[in-house]
Amino acid sequence: MRPNFNLWLEVNGEVTFSIWRVRLLKAVEETGSISGAAAQLGIHYRTAWQKIHEMETRLGIKLVETQTGGRQGGGATLTPIALEYVERFLYFSADVEQAVEAAYQAYIDKLSPRC
Amino acid sequence: MRPNFNLWLEVNGEVTFSIWRVRLLKAVEETGSISGAAAQLGIHYRTAWQKIHEMETRLGIKLVETQTGGRQGGGATLTPIALEYVERFLYFSADVEQAVEAAYQAYIDKLSPRC
Repeated sequence: MRPNFNLWLEVNGEVTFSIWRVRLLKAVEETGSISGAAAQLGIHYRTAWQKIHEMETRLGIKLVETQTGGRQGGGATLTPIALEYVERFLYFSADVEQAVEAAYQAYIDKLSPRC
Repeated sequence: MRPNFNLWLEVNGEVTFSIWRVRLLKAVEETGSISGAAAQLGIHYRTAWQKIHEMETRLGIKLVETQTGGRQGGGATLTPIALEYVERFLYFSADVEQAVEAAYQAYIDKLSPRC
């Protein structure tokens, strides 16, 4: 038996950042484009774009800057506030992961069948 | 902005206990029947029964004892091991909830828009 969790932030009861959404933003930064991020996560470009747009609307802040044209064609980078949110969410999530493991060891591990 | 989470236990990668499933077991204990628990959670009897059956199969242990007939008609109670799992899962979940709040305060709260 193993513990698992999901973690997210809500604005007015609606999901803004989550483990998956932060992975999406990180992928934009790593690949330099929304299409590259979509490919990395195995989702459609349209889905990636919609999720980013949804987060921006719910937060009321810009998270992704897009450039069109240029030598490399269009590209995308995270805004400074998006980079800050990503970094802080990763710390937030790492702390919670440690707590889940510790609480699992404290309350469940001794009781659970071996699998 | 507010944090939220879900928490569950997996056996061979399949969900056994989760916050919702433990609520279902608690409702069986409180109402004394699977149908009462289903009504309390606003789900069909068949769904409640299936989830319980699934948990028992994945764990390889009996969680709910059902009685047929008698003065009150059929009823259901949790087995001692199910009661133990419910109690421990609630402690587990309460610890994680505290950790989520603490980590949120530490990393996110100062940064978040007021909502």
